Amino acid sequence: MFTTDWKPNKSSSVPLHRQITDFIKEKITNGEWTIGYKLPPQRTLAKELGVNRSTVVTAYDELIAEGLIEGKSGSGTRVVNNTWNLLVTMPPPDWTSYVKVGTHKPNLPTIQEINQAEFIPDIIRLGTGELSPNLIPSMAMKKIFHQLANREISYGYEEPKGLLPLREQIANYLKTIGIYASPSSILIVSGALQALQLISVGLLHKGSTVLTEKPSYLHSLNVFQSAGMRLMGIPMDKEGIQAKLVKQYKKQQKAALLYTIPSFHNPTGTLMTMDRRKQLLDTCQQEQLPLIEDDVYRELWFDEHLPKPIKSFDKNGLVLYLGSLSKSLSPGLRIGWIVGPEPVVEHLADIKMQTDYGSSSLSQWAAVEWFSSGFYSKHLNEVREQLKIRRDFTLDTLNKYFSDLAVWQKPTGGFYIWLRLLPLISMRKLFEIALSEGILLNPGNVYDHHAEQYLRISYSFAPLPEIHDGLKRLSMIVKMLAK
Amino acid sequence: MFTTDWKPNKSSSVPLHRQITDFIKEKITNGEWTIGYKLPPQRTLAKELGVNRSTVVTAYDELIAEGLIEGKSGSGTRVVNNTWNLLVTMPPPDWTSYVKVGTHKPNLPTIQEINQAEFIPDIIRLGTGELSPNLIPSMAMKKIFHQLANREISYGYEEPKGLLPLREQIANYLKTIGIYASPSSILIVSGALQALQLISVGLLHKGSTVLTEKPSYLHSLNVFQSAGMRLMGIPMDKEGIQAKLVKQYKKQQKAALLYTIPSFHNPTGTLMTMDRRKQLLDTCQQEQLPLIEDDVYRELWFDEHLPKPIKSFDKNGLVLYLGSLSKSLSPGLRIGWIVGPEPVVEHLADIKMQTDYGSSSLSQWAAVEWFSSGFYSKHLNEVREQLKIRRDFTLDTLNKYFSDLAVWQKPTGGFYIWLRLLPLISMRKLFEIALSEGILLNPGNVYDHHAEQYLRISYSFAPLPEIHDGLKRLSMIVKMLAK
Ligand SMILES: Cc1ncc(COP(=O)(O)O)c(C=O)c1O
Ligand SMILES: Cc1ncc(COP(=O)(O)O)c(C=O)c1O
Repeated sequence: MFTTDWKPNKSSSVPLHRQITDFIKEKITNGEWTIGYKLPPQRTLAKELGVNRSTVVTAYDELIAEGLIEGKSGSGTRVVNNTWNLLVTMPPPDWTSYVKVGTHKPNLPTIQEINQAEFIPDIIRLGTGELSPNLIPSMAMKKIFHQLANREISYGYEEPKGLLPLREQIANYLKTIGIYASPSSILIVSGALQALQLISVGLLHKGSTVLTEKPSYLHSLNVFQSAGMRLMGIPMDKEGIQAKLVKQYKKQQKAALLYTIPSFHNPTGTLMTMDRRKQLLDTCQQEQLPLIEDDVYRELWFDEHLPKPIKSFDKNGLVLYLGSLSKSLSPGLRIGWIVGPEPVVEHLADIKMQTDYGSSSLSQWAAVEWFSSGFYSKHLNEVREQLKIRRDFTLDTLNKYFSDLAVWQKPTGGFYIWLRLLPLISMRKLFEIALSEGILLNPGNVYDHHAEQYLRISYSFAPLPEIHDGLKRLSMIVKMLAK
Repeated sequence: MFTTDWKPNKSSSVPLHRQITDFIKEKITNGEWTIGYKLPPQRTLAKELGVNRSTVVTAYDELIAEGLIEGKSGSGTRVVNNTWNLLVTMPPPDWTSYVKVGTHKPNLPTIQEINQAEFIPDIIRLGTGELSPNLIPSMAMKKIFHQLANREISYGYEEPKGLLPLREQIANYLKTIGIYASPSSILIVSGALQALQLISVGLLHKGSTVLTEKPSYLHSLNVFQSAGMRLMGIPMDKEGIQAKLVKQYKKQQKAALLYTIPSFHNPTGTLMTMDRRKQLLDTCQQEQLPLIEDDVYRELWFDEHLPKPIKSFDKNGLVLYLGSLSKSLSPGLRIGWIVGPEPVVEHLADIKMQTDYGSSSLSQWAAVEWFSSGFYSKHLNEVREQLKIRRDFTLDTLNKYFSDLAVWQKPTGGFYIWLRLLPLISMRKLFEIALSEGILLNPGNVYDHHAEQYLRISYSFAPLPEIHDGLKRLSMIVKMLAK
């Protein structure tokens, strides 16, 4: 999909098509659109710039006449010259081949589409896994800025494991959930995603298999696959991942690691029971299968405290525990943590230093303030309350419009409802039609290739009226497709 | 090297050896030191904790008596049990094998030593490549915090290429140095190091070769090597990399990319002349060899404006241009940028999203303020003046103590003096003796395997009296070794 920040100025005396040729010439002149670059189709560019297609046609024709671009039916329009190489003949750099060979895989196409569609104005985002801007405590954040202005803050490169005062705060926080860890066994990361990235390149062989829940958030990423690993999902039931299957999967798949999201699982919303947690840890112990416990949704419970983290029973250092401020406070902070055996944490810290020399000092100091001021725990109470209201509203709306069309469970925390649609319709069609009507969906097959009948609905992001409107209109599209 | 944040409390009534056994037991109990973990040698731990060696011996003996650790002569002391598996027998997780197999290489041993030694209190850091804390404008940073408190700031996940207002500010800034780039061809990264990381996994085949200056900062990292690439250095002269050799090196090495630091090169301080810049770009054009221009030291000129970036003559999009606020403002911000052809920038943005979901919003907004308030350009004037004073002081000191011992060039900007020692002494010995006397060095062979007689001296970091004291004592060590 082509997007641009530039828009023609409709009140200017310069004709629109001329503004567009100037815009494109500048791209070519600056080397931003290199020779061989494929221009957006006329229809797409017209839509993106909010002009008639004929205006774009005129602009392209002019550029063709000047010899800068060339249109071939079938393969689209490409840059063939720039003003300089009209003077001197020089072979153009062949960036396309570079972009293709990199070892890191691009995002899944659907994920790329979703990432870009998120920036379409007024789109209703029914699946977005983040807090709504009005759930982010911007007033408290302002206070934190003022507090930071009065602190002696470090602005240099930080220690490999991250700011000690922050690791101390996190060690204190972890005690409240039953995990006893000293600051030296904690690594600060730029969000839990970076933790996964570091683990993928730091701890695993190419060709090894990572076991996950089926479905799992991990399948929507390419992080382990890009490092040469395979993912294999183990079925879940209401209590969480089916621990009794782990032994057999481990053997069949020669698995090296198990990744689990026990608290308010992404995308199903499932809360793993205490018994299941213990059973899973026991099995992993017996199998000597290290475990990544991704607990980023832990603090978002609605009714009662939830079972303790698996890490809290882990006496042998089998579990790498991941936490983050993204889901409960602000993703933009990019602050998360890994807790594990010291040699593992040190190794990952060394790799992190080689990747980005540590996380932002500003974010780390802001996080210290959030914890030490008590603002964070106050904020958590509020966010839980608000999320519960959002969940109830969304369940009511689903009951109203989807009672004949889908089934779902009531989540007891987190962001997600895992909706199974009853009519057998094409999810790709549903996604496309919804998008054309301004509704953005997260289809289930992003989290499990075989989950063809599922949607991840999130009640955390869109304003309530939009959730209502979106779900209502979605139900009509589903009905239409089911006919 | 073993380091810990914990220290025994010498005024406590609990005996020191008991405090130490408790500390170690907790590590074992929490699974931070897993079964098989190798404890620090008694001498090392004693030194780190500031106690007598006999105290540590007593503590280890107690733990051996309890069956928790076991000492074998030759292979050191290891954890063999934890309190739990004394009750139930469970095979321990084998993390060591995990740490060994990861695809990402650990840092060079000397770099690891340097990274850790940097946190030894009172150490004189003669080679550290960052601004001294008192050159970081903390007063202005405080003002920026207050300003941020009055802005409407985004706290969610950001756009793949980074905050648009920041990309706009950077586009404006780039104009002042002759680079015309629109915001859509700019990617915000968490420092220039991350830019290199993204390029290494996003644009290159395994097995390809990257050409560099010889010596080069890049050789002190494992970033390209970990992605399966080789580095090959091309000799420099006073004008910079010897562009006339590029063709031959490219052919012999089947090089895929050339990496250069044209402005105040790390570690030699060399400023590439205008002629050489043009010659290099021409050669790379003819060879269709894309170029990474790492320009992080550009703003740190002392006497006059320097030649324009290579990117400013690049009309075909052959150059990926890197900038950063680390060297000129604050490394802790972790803000840098990549400028290049749009498809390349988009591909790298996609990979960045998969690596850490974008850079810290706080840092990005703070950077917007730095640029838009004009504080940044004001600060640059000051930092240039201060660095020039530091350079002159350091050159004077070198003249005083090293005129018979070394040769060097006078840098016209940046942080570094590339010191070639005349006596043929062991650099490893020099490094170790200096370290034992509280002086931390950056030996030249970190930047070029063959640069055995060199030191990178930085005048940016240590306080002037320490630079004087450090260099004076260093000259005595050199003389002693030369005998
Ligand atoms: C289970 C899970 N882990 C990790 C992440 C990434 O979070 P962060 O923003 O901390 O990188 C997400 C976000 O979608 C998630 O759902
Ligand atoms: C030439 C060069 N490039 C990049 C970097 C990394 O800078 P940043 O802090 O922006 O990642 C350094 C820092 O040492 C450097 O010397």
